[in-house]
Amino acid sequence: MFKVKVLVKRRPSILDPQGMAVEKGAKHLGFNNIKDTRIGKYVEFTVDAGEKKSAEKEVKEYCDKLLINPNLEDYEFTLEEIA
Amino acid sequence: MFKVKVLVKRRPSILDPQGMAVEKGAKHLGFNNIKDTRIGKYVEFTVDAGEKKSAEKEVKEYCDKLLINPNLEDYEFTLEEIA
Repeated sequence: MFKVKVLVKRRPSILDPQGMAVEKGAKHLGFNNIKDTRIGKYVEFTVDAGEKKSAEKEVKEYCDKLLINPNLEDYEFTLEEIA
Repeated sequence: MFKVKVLVKRRPSILDPQGMAVEKGAKHLGFNNIKDTRIGKYVEFTVDAGEKKSAEKEVKEYCDKLLINPNLEDYEFTLEEIA
């Protein structure tokens, strides 16, 4: 069994309207030193697989088919074996 | 100047409907080994501050006032000095 943590980011070339909106709010509240806010996703789950290789394969498929928009986003993940 | 990376997670005791929906989709696609999907946020930004302590203070305020729902979510962040 593996614990998986995935970071999903918009590609640098893709605008991030949510980040821009939050940052606009920040300016109104007086946060003038904060810039380049980009908001992505952080996904955690477990995979019940015996070997790391087969777990990685399943994680990639899960990301590609469900978690990620491949047109806009990149991702990276870590696997950690748990009891 | 500091580069900040924030992980935002729902508290373990709070239901995560988005994660449950994605996982239900996963089951339909045949991913039977994936469990406990939880979807949070990953936020990146820069803080223009000279000292790490004042940068941390500003990051905490930004999180508490804008990025986080303190009733549902916890967060952790890292700061890295950049040029």
